[in-house]
Amino acid sequence: MLLMKLALLQMAVGEQKQENLHHAWNMVKDAAQQGAQLAVLPEMFLCPYENESFVRSAEEAGGTAWQTLSRTAAENHIWLVGGSFPEKGGEHLYNTCFVFDPRGRQAARHRKMHLFDIDVEGRQSFRESDTFSAGNDVTVFDTEFGRIGVCICFDLRFPELAGLMTQRGAQMLVVPAAFNMTTGPVHWELLFRQRAVDNQLFTAGVAPARDEAASYVSYANSILCSPWGTVLARAGSDEACLLYDVDFSQNDAVRHQLPLLSAKRTDIYELCEKCK
Amino acid sequence: MLLMKLALLQMAVGEQKQENLHHAWNMVKDAAQQGAQLAVLPEMFLCPYENESFVRSAEEAGGTAWQTLSRTAAENHIWLVGGSFPEKGGEHLYNTCFVFDPRGRQAARHRKMHLFDIDVEGRQSFRESDTFSAGNDVTVFDTEFGRIGVCICFDLRFPELAGLMTQRGAQMLVVPAAFNMTTGPVHWELLFRQRAVDNQLFTAGVAPARDEAASYVSYANSILCSPWGTVLARAGSDEACLLYDVDFSQNDAVRHQLPLLSAKRTDIYELCEKCK
Repeated sequence: MLLMKLALLQMAVGEQKQENLHHAWNMVKDAAQQGAQLAVLPEMFLCPYENESFVRSAEEAGGTAWQTLSRTAAENHIWLVGGSFPEKGGEHLYNTCFVFDPRGRQAARHRKMHLFDIDVEGRQSFRESDTFSAGNDVTVFDTEFGRIGVCICFDLRFPELAGLMTQRGAQMLVVPAAFNMTTGPVHWELLFRQRAVDNQLFTAGVAPARDEAASYVSYANSILCSPWGTVLARAGSDEACLLYDVDFSQNDAVRHQLPLLSAKRTDIYELCEKCK
Repeated sequence: MLLMKLALLQMAVGEQKQENLHHAWNMVKDAAQQGAQLAVLPEMFLCPYENESFVRSAEEAGGTAWQTLSRTAAENHIWLVGGSFPEKGGEHLYNTCFVFDPRGRQAARHRKMHLFDIDVEGRQSFRESDTFSAGNDVTVFDTEFGRIGVCICFDLRFPELAGLMTQRGAQMLVVPAAFNMTTGPVHWELLFRQRAVDNQLFTAGVAPARDEAASYVSYANSILCSPWGTVLARAGSDEACLLYDVDFSQNDAVRHQLPLLSAKRTDIYELCEKCK
């Protein structure tokens, strides 16, 4: 049984990019000192969740934020799912998650594929597509513990993407995310639990700590769910580091007892990735 | 706003087929007298949930059970989703739901597409495929209130089938079902809520009342969920008739505020029904 010590870093995100970066560096270091082997930062850990901040804070791959994440992974010899920050890519901006291996090499890049446009009457509104372009790739990466899928927040709302990561052999879906105070209380736990049950794998969501003064208030509640849909760890609204020893062999056990993946009627329906 | 008064009939199922049939007839009649326009019976309302009973109770379409359901719908001028019973079809047995319109005409037939084979160590075991053959059709039917999808119990575990019914325009998924005391407490509500949220429609699950003395103990807890994932009505373990005025225009409102269906990346992935 190969356990992976996972660290979900529910970080408090402030106005200053450099401070946020430094703070992330410290949180990963602390987690590594507690034995973490894979650490996850929240969506948009570099700047407040607002379109103006996204533009102001954007950087290219290989820039300061990217380099700092790479060094953080290497110096702490840890897998690092680097939350997300606004990535400049040519003339476009993306909401991008870079993943680094314990030697600091980029292991994956996920550009948010489903942009978050919501308009709940009298409650939460946001149009991420005003600023960002959407990525086009399903993203998984291999670790010594098993294959891991990564997507960003709103991406997880689409069962097709989770299904494709599962088809590709993901043992856990890692999701930097930032639900709000409208959708969070009703949909957050439900979503992470049901994606875990449907795909019979672990799911992990990592959100910024809640800042009631922010223009977009993060629901926080970072969460880890088992392939049986049990909540294994969950943060509150404050900054937190959740540590948990994940055992991917539980996926096989659940898949054997309740054969959902093998019982799909692929003779009747098909979920497929289109050729590009 | 066209409301549909829905009746979820959490019926107590006994050993005697004729008594069960008569009891169903009475429950539908009572619901109709309270104004119900569409009534739903549970999975396997005709016999206990065990393979030997399935074989013993099986009937062909057009047989006594089918005729009684048809007459029940016509006499009460009500849409009737006739739970399910073991259907003889040629040399095969199916777990089949027949749907009748208010004139007693068969409006749909769904043969359970995913057979329930489960073996949770030291807990629940069942092999439906020892007795039944699987159906091959995605099933929706049209009412004056809107289009309705129907599937049976384990079928709902597969997000692809719910997705296909949604693609076909279903406004509600009606699911005769019988979860047990292992899967029910952890997965039942979760599943109905998340399928509602993912597909932005109503979901309704109708189970037999709980009989602790049965070889397979139904979790009961018949349930109705809104397209926002809210539980609108829920039974306990005893026999119950849940009545609720369903307003399908809520689906459009939710789909507008949180555009999930229109935001699918159909340029990247596709869920499709295979040509037969």
